[in-house]
Formats: sequence, structure tokens, C-alpha cells
Amino acid sequence: MRLSQTFSRTIKTIPADEQAINAQLLIRSGMIYKEMAGVYAYLPLGLRVIENIKNIVRQEMECLGSSELLMTTIQNKEVWELSGRWDDQLVDVWFKSQLKNGTEVGFGWSHEEPLMILMSKYIKSYRDLPISVYQFQTKLRNEFRAKSGIMRGREFLMKDMYAFSRSQQELDMFYDQAKQAYHKVFERVGLGPYTYLTYASGGSFTQFSHEFQTVTKSGEDIIYVDKKKHLAVNEEVYNDQVLRQLDLKKNELEKLKASEVGNIFNFGKTKAEQMDVYFTDKSGHRQPVYLSSYGIGISRLMGVIAEHFNDSKGLIWPEAIAPALVYLIAIGNQKEAELSLELYNLLTAQKVAVIYDDRDVRPGEKFADADLIGIPWRVVVNSKTVTSGKYEIKSRSLDKPDYVDKESLVNQMSRIVSRLAIKS
Amino acid sequence: MRLSQTFSRTIKTIPADEQAINAQLLIRSGMIYKEMAGVYAYLPLGLRVIENIKNIVRQEMECLGSSELLMTTIQNKEVWELSGRWDDQLVDVWFKSQLKNGTEVGFGWSHEEPLMILMSKYIKSYRDLPISVYQFQTKLRNEFRAKSGIMRGREFLMKDMYAFSRSQQELDMFYDQAKQAYHKVFERVGLGPYTYLTYASGGSFTQFSHEFQTVTKSGEDIIYVDKKKHLAVNEEVYNDQVLRQLDLKKNELEKLKASEVGNIFNFGKTKAEQMDVYFTDKSGHRQPVYLSSYGIGISRLMGVIAEHFNDSKGLIWPEAIAPALVYLIAIGNQKEAELSLELYNLLTAQKVAVIYDDRDVRPGEKFADADLIGIPWRVVVNSKTVTSGKYEIKSRSLDKPDYVDKESLVNQMSRIVSRLAIKS
Repeated sequence: MRLSQTFSRTIKTIPADEQAINAQLLIRSGMIYKEMAGVYAYLPLGLRVIENIKNIVRQEMECLGSSELLMTTIQNKEVWELSGRWDDQLVDVWFKSQLKNGTEVGFGWSHEEPLMILMSKYIKSYRDLPISVYQFQTKLRNEFRAKSGIMRGREFLMKDMYAFSRSQQELDMFYDQAKQAYHKVFERVGLGPYTYLTYASGGSFTQFSHEFQTVTKSGEDIIYVDKKKHLAVNEEVYNDQVLRQLDLKKNELEKLKASEVGNIFNFGKTKAEQMDVYFTDKSGHRQPVYLSSYGIGISRLMGVIAEHFNDSKGLIWPEAIAPALVYLIAIGNQKEAELSLELYNLLTAQKVAVIYDDRDVRPGEKFADADLIGIPWRVVVNSKTVTSGKYEIKSRSLDKPDYVDKESLVNQMSRIVSRLAIKS
Repeated sequence: MRLSQTFSRTIKTIPADEQAINAQLLIRSGMIYKEMAGVYAYLPLGLRVIENIKNIVRQEMECLGSSELLMTTIQNKEVWELSGRWDDQLVDVWFKSQLKNGTEVGFGWSHEEPLMILMSKYIKSYRDLPISVYQFQTKLRNEFRAKSGIMRGREFLMKDMYAFSRSQQELDMFYDQAKQAYHKVFERVGLGPYTYLTYASGGSFTQFSHEFQTVTKSGEDIIYVDKKKHLAVNEEVYNDQVLRQLDLKKNELEKLKASEVGNIFNFGKTKAEQMDVYFTDKSGHRQPVYLSSYGIGISRLMGVIAEHFNDSKGLIWPEAIAPALVYLIAIGNQKEAELSLELYNLLTAQKVAVIYDDRDVRPGEKFADADLIGIPWRVVVNSKTVTSGKYEIKSRSLDKPDYVDKESLVNQMSRIVSRLAIKS
């Protein structure tokens, strides 16, 4: 994209009303815009990050054989009354309103119940199972406080997947595959080394649920990490008995703050019994469906990555989710601009996403914006390029640039694109 | 996709609670699911249609140089009070609720006002203009009645674009380009011949706005069409004076029902004056920004297409937006299944989207579903294929099949994909 024609603006000052590092950086770099506390719009560069994360998650969910659908924001009171979760005492984050005829409606803070009812219309026989569906959907939650930027919003984007199985064994098999898919997702977005499979409370359904917790100072959760085993225990289930059960030793654990970027949940057959979702098995008997659910906070993930990868100059996006791979700056006159445009076209033809900063502003402002926006590679075309044919290329996370000719530059970047495109 | 592993189910009976053809067909074919009147979830095949339409619209908006962003569903009362449109007397489709602290919030039925305020934070100087942004966003509208399926929902998907210009002349230039882009969109989704640029009321801002109206029996609007000039006049501005002005003759016009699939609106500088959105011009003077807005009802478009392209057997999707290009059926045993899988892999490798119906059901059911779902091309592999090497291929809109060898079949389909991928 050519920056002169794109809507993208950086802001010099730190927003006074934001405490969270992610919100400060994302607002300053022009990725998001605050509509109100916990409610953010995604500006073009930020939306690209969101779409890049979604595409990685989508690929991994498709590998699991899951089908994408899209539930609704407006929800039925009756559907939620089946599980008792319409009650504001039980679920304290509902936004509710009513239709013209007085019918009460809710706005989707979760889609578990409506999805169960939807699937119950289509699942009749064992032949219809196992089946899995997922969606990317905006969730609306009436949080009392919202101070963590896009790490805990009143409006946020989530991927939620649901698997319907015929037995506990079939459920467990999918559950394990999904666990591996989740590891791949966090690896691919750049958080692999900092993200731990974490034993957490299973509520009334099972002893444990599994969370994926990314270690970060701004996290709202406390976890106990065994770095060697790359496992963790959430504070909420941390006790001697659980440690014995998981074969973990107290003195090998580190107490750390973390943010829950994913969770997976095994409902067994309880939820289906509650909501009346049954299928007919091979011998003609009516059986409850086994349910498991799998969440990833897409916008929270973006926030955690922003908290994790930054320095005093701004953001440092991992290549796989950066709004662009290359930030291209021309310094000089006509000749330099021509070489830049040529390079821009060459890279774009190789499917390398490039931000070409062709704005009529000082070079210093372009350098500062390249760093603040956090594009992985910065390429400069200047008078030396004209005379020597060498282009200055610098990684956002290194201090010193390299000088390479056009062909190697294009090859290097296009190799990165190919590597990132490889599906798991 | 292999149907045995995909969540997709057709329904035999016509839903009793749906009057609209589009809803009946889309529910029966497993494209959508009714959550409540005017509120529909999109099942996997239906979501593919939506994404295909979005991609065509996105390409055309990007060609206009517009940048995609994403506004919020939860909206500020204060922002809407600036234009007076928070008032339920003025806007009777608001869903409203409140935060825990009692602050009233609205749910986005439109994004004009919040977008104006957002842009006002970034637009300072003439150097920041012209600029254009667009989004795909779910709109929530508390409609009194909702009987037209996805043609008028309480929850629906819209593309809305906004252009910010420095002068009426600059606005008019973009407006004309956008008009052409809109024609291309409707042409590409298959509605070109039935969609008319229509003169409609410009409200308090300008004499006319422009609608794009698709002729359809279930339309809610009345338009007067000049088929030769491919132009129309909305009933709301139809009078002798307007006809004279537009050089149209009463006896050359046909009165028809139509559905508004797009509209474009020229606000001039009025909206900016109302909402206090100004820029500094070259000579340092403060000037109001010129605004124009451009909507396309994405889910309505899907509904209109469903109303337009169907027969007694089901839907007939235009190739450009069909959930898949090919519906593949194997009849027979092991050998036929092997040839089908081979063909499936060959087509998929050429980026041809295929629904391979590998379910364990009677052939008759597969044929019926292929027709009901409305996939443009049906391919059958049977015993004759094994002996002669010929594959049966039939267009959804023709009665007689052709018999072709594997190579021509793959070539024919992959040529269609290439043709559809060509950007305007």
C-alpha cells in the first residue's frame, strides 16, 4: 500500500486515558481507535493484524476438519433459559434490550447455548457425528471495569469452536488434536515459547479445563510454570494434591503473571443433557451428545503480542502477523522515487506486503513511523542506491542495516513469504 | 470439501414460518438458520456465499483506493447526540442498553456519526485529504416487522464506505468513480442486467441520492424503469418535473417492484458542519470536509440473488458467488470412488472449489441436494466413466449433460476460475 493514499495516522503523544501498554502503543501507531473504555475500532493497519491472526487460526481449524459458520449477535431469551444462564445473577456481563413488541433479547457474550440448539436441529443420528464447527464472532460483554486495552474488552473478537462427539473416547481424541492445533497457532503467531498449556478449573463439568496462558506482566492471571516440562497450573487449582496428581514439584515451579489467550473445555455429556441434545446410536438408542469447546481470544492475542514485542521506539510485530513485511522509504529526488516504485512493484508482484511511505514528510518522520508501526523489515532507497545499486535493509529488532542488491532483497523477502505461507 | 466431514444439512420441508422465497430456499438448502424473525445465522455453505460477495466488493473498493477498517457495535450516546440521531423519535430502530455504571449505549444501526468523529481526530490539513475508508459490519436494527428473510433483517451485514473530500468537485469525481465500481459489483455477482441506477430522494442534503435497485417481485420499493437507458426513478421522487429534468418520458417507463441493494449519498459539507469536522486549506483557512457515503447490503444481496436465481428444484447460484463451482457425485463402488477422489484432488489443486458428496446416502438424495444447494456444475462418476473415461457434466441451469474426458473437464473448470478471478 502507498501510505499517501491510505488512511493511517500515527500519534505523537501517549493517550492520557490509557494505562495498558498495548492500548498506548496500538493507538499511537494508528492500529486501533478508542470508541469508549473497552471498545475499540480497528484502523486499516490494525485490521490487517487481526486478519493475519484469523487466517492462521482458520488454517489450523480447517486442518482439524472443522467447518466455519457465523452465529448471530442478537439472541433468544428462551435459549439461554434452558441452561439458566439468562439470569443476570449467574451471568453478570449481559447486554440486554427488547424488540418493539416487548420481547427481551440479549447480545451475544457467548454462543454456547444458541449453538447447541442450532446443532440439535441437524444432529439426529450417529451418522451425523462426529462434527465440529467454529466461528469468528464479536462478543459483547458488559464488564464492570475495562482497563486492559484490547486484552479485556467490552467488545472483542473471539474464535470459538465446538465439537460434537458420540462418546467420551471420540471427544478425547478430538480434544488432543485440538490441543496440538492450539500449540501450532501460538507458535505461528510468535508466542510459542511464552505460552503454556495450563491446568485450570473444570467447573462443574470435569476436574480440569485447559488454558493456554501467555506469560506477560500485564496478565490478569497467576500461573505456576514448570519451564522444563513447558506446563503450568492456574492459581485457582494450585494445591498439593493437584501437584502430586500432575507429577509437578513445588520447588521447580515459577509463579508468574499471564494472560489467557485460549481455553479448551470438556463438557462430557452434561451440557447435552441440560439442553436436550440427543442422537440415535447404531442400536437405535437415544444418547446425549458429548460436547467440547475451544476458544481463542483473537483481539486479546493481538494485545498480548503488542505487550510482548515492543521497545522504546514502538511495536515489533512478528513476521507472520505484521500489517506488512516491508516498510519502504525513499530519500532524495526523482531518481530515488523511481527506484522505490520499481522495488515496490517487484515486491508486490511476489506477494510481499509492502508499506511504501511516499508521503510528503521529512525522512526523520518516516523512520520514526516505521519503528512505531513496527514493520519487521525497513528498506531505504537513497543516493547511494542510485550510484551503487545497493539497498539498505534493516530488521526492526536489529540496530545495523545490511546493503544488498535488488535481486537478493526481493529473493530474501519472497522466501519469508513462502515460509510463512506453509500450512502446518 | 468432503460432505461427509462438513457440517451441511438440507431440509426437506418448507419452513412454515417463512413467507419469503429467499428464506425458504436458503433454510432448506442449509445456507442459513433462523435464530428469530429477521435474525439468521450463516451455516458453512451460506457463509461461503457471503465471503464470495464480500471479496468482490472488497476488490472494487480497493480499486477505488479505499482502506478497510472496522468500527464498533457498541456506540456512544454523545456522538449521536451531535447530529440529533440518538433520539428514538428520529431514529426508530435503535437497540439500546446501558453499562454497569448506568451510561447509556447504543448498538450500531449505522456508523456514519462515529466514523465522522473518528476521522475528525485524524484529518487536520488539506494534506490528509482526499481519503476514503470502508468496512464490512453487522448492523443491528430494531425493525417493527421482519418478514422478508435476509432481505430486511434485524441483524444484517453491510458494506459502508465513506469518502472525505476537500471540495464539491473532488467529491463529485469520487462519486462518479464509485458509481462505476458499484455497476461492476452488481455485474460480477450476476445481477447486472436487473439492477438499475435509480434516482431517489436526497433528503435534506441534496436533490437526489442514487440507489441501485434490483428488479424483483419481493422488492419493497416501486421504481419506474427506462430499460433502454438502463435508468430508473424511485416512486418517492417520481413526478413530471423530475422526469423532465432527467429527460425521461412517462410512456417509456415501466413500473416495477425492486429491492435496494446499494445506495450512494452526497452530503456536501452539511454533515461536517453539523458534526464539526473541519480541515485547514492551503491558505490556512478552516473549511468543512465534504462527505459522501456508499452502502451495499451484503446479506440483502445474497437474498435478492436467491430470489432471482432459482427453480422448482432449488437455488441456482451464479458462478462468481456459488459456495462451490462443482458438485461431485460418485455412483457405484470402489473404482468409481477412486476416480472421484482423484478428480476431486485434481480440481482442488487447480483452485476449483468442489463439494464432493461422499456421504453414505442414495444417489437420488445426492442429485436432489446438488439441485437444491444450487451448485453451478454437477459432475457424476459412474460405471460408464470407468469403462469409457468420460465424466458426466451438467450445468445447473441446463437439462442435458455433456460427457467429457478428465483433462477437458479440469481445463474447463479451471478456465472459469481464472475468468472469475480477473480483477476489474
